[in-house]
Amino acid sequence: MQVWPSRIAIVGVGLLGASVAKSIRRRVADMHVVGVVRNPEKRHWLVDSGILDSATDSLSEGCRDADVVVVATPVDRIADFVQGAAADSPPECLITDVGSTKQGIVDAVINNALATGKFVAAHPVAGSEKTGADHAIETLFDGKVTILTPSEKTPAEFVKKAETFWQLTGSRTSLLRPDEHDLVMAAVSHVPHLASSAVARLVNQDSADFIGSGWCDITRVAAGDPGMWLAICKENRSAIEQQLAKLVDSINDCRRMLIENDDAALLRWLDEAKTIRDNI
Amino acid sequence: MQVWPSRIAIVGVGLLGASVAKSIRRRVADMHVVGVVRNPEKRHWLVDSGILDSATDSLSEGCRDADVVVVATPVDRIADFVQGAAADSPPECLITDVGSTKQGIVDAVINNALATGKFVAAHPVAGSEKTGADHAIETLFDGKVTILTPSEKTPAEFVKKAETFWQLTGSRTSLLRPDEHDLVMAAVSHVPHLASSAVARLVNQDSADFIGSGWCDITRVAAGDPGMWLAICKENRSAIEQQLAKLVDSINDCRRMLIENDDAALLRWLDEAKTIRDNI
Repeated sequence: MQVWPSRIAIVGVGLLGASVAKSIRRRVADMHVVGVVRNPEKRHWLVDSGILDSATDSLSEGCRDADVVVVATPVDRIADFVQGAAADSPPECLITDVGSTKQGIVDAVINNALATGKFVAAHPVAGSEKTGADHAIETLFDGKVTILTPSEKTPAEFVKKAETFWQLTGSRTSLLRPDEHDLVMAAVSHVPHLASSAVARLVNQDSADFIGSGWCDITRVAAGDPGMWLAICKENRSAIEQQLAKLVDSINDCRRMLIENDDAALLRWLDEAKTIRDNI
Repeated sequence: MQVWPSRIAIVGVGLLGASVAKSIRRRVADMHVVGVVRNPEKRHWLVDSGILDSATDSLSEGCRDADVVVVATPVDRIADFVQGAAADSPPECLITDVGSTKQGIVDAVINNALATGKFVAAHPVAGSEKTGADHAIETLFDGKVTILTPSEKTPAEFVKKAETFWQLTGSRTSLLRPDEHDLVMAAVSHVPHLASSAVARLVNQDSADFIGSGWCDITRVAAGDPGMWLAICKENRSAIEQQLAKLVDSINDCRRMLIENDDAALLRWLDEAKTIRDNI
């Protein structure tokens, strides 16, 4: 068993924050996990259920003496909490997050020398359409990848620390520039999510009875939390819009092939999609 | 146990044809299932594996003495086989199919009095991205719906027979007009499939490492057989093109909301999609 980190603070204890705590407990002995949580009933439940060792509504109290602070709030709140945690935590404390967008967060923090010296932005590519700490599981990150997006100003030793920390959850780590991350995620996550919602919206009262398993697979993620996805869209507007435009072009290609009876091209189009899917 | 049908012929024994045989065997005693299959090795395997009781490459031999003929070939071959089976089977024999499109098939058969008198077009809304008789399962249709699309000329007693037959597979039955069926299926199945392929096509070498479970769900059906989906597209071109145009409009709405920072509308758009998904 590892001994570092001996104390971690989790700011915002939902599905991801609670799963970070559960997954790391498997590998680190006697770790104290403190949660920073606003709602008093939720604080009690999180400690009673054993997810947290203690809980507070005060960021400064939570971050005092922490070896690692994980900011696991919705993406539009992350940059503020990172800067608060940087001020309230010891100098050697690693600050990291779980946000699905990165450029906006890294940019918002970059001129704060204290935060930039301790913060390594992270995106564990794992999740569920379910939300809330009660759905947290210790295996959520096993075999998944956590993308780290340090800025040019992030000290190398903190990048190292962040790699060690995220590997303790069971995930592999990978480095990308924040802007690269956001473009890639628009293509493989954000736009697929919006496409799933658009597909769900084609259904009405008359057709609901005739839905098969394919539709259910495709639209599963459309049941995700709209507030969370709005926050992601706001943080990654331009990359998402670019990739949505590519998606529309691709669908319009397909329409053209249908209208023009260009069956050879349509078969190729379907075949290429199958090859990509089969290779994953 | 039922005693009807005592003999069924299955023309084209893939995933669906073989699953029809397996599912009905659970409820009908001493039923003989004959398969009409071109490939001699496949004929042997299907009989050896117990899916079929006998096999032939001759449609007329397969249909002689049959109580029910199920045409389970790709959709673009169905109408021809239905007409052949109508000529080769006894007068009281029900002919049905498993095609995912209906208007083209019903139209192609409507002026053939013999076929129209015995054929009840059917679409069991069940399947898998896997193909082939080796993936057939006896529970494939359990709890699913089979849509029957008789024409105005189909005799009522044959519609009744088709309801009885398809309920023996474990599915419920539901009646729609062929054109209604095709429009509904374009919305809930064909266009979702094409959208899934379009989403898969957004991924390239650089982004493949960062794919999460959402992408995998959304693109699962894109691994389906391109030849089968091309045949569906050819049979249902205009309804699919209409619904693809609706999908593009919806995605373009979403782009406009992103560009114009219309976050309230975007939240509503996401919320409506979630509500539809949650209600299924």
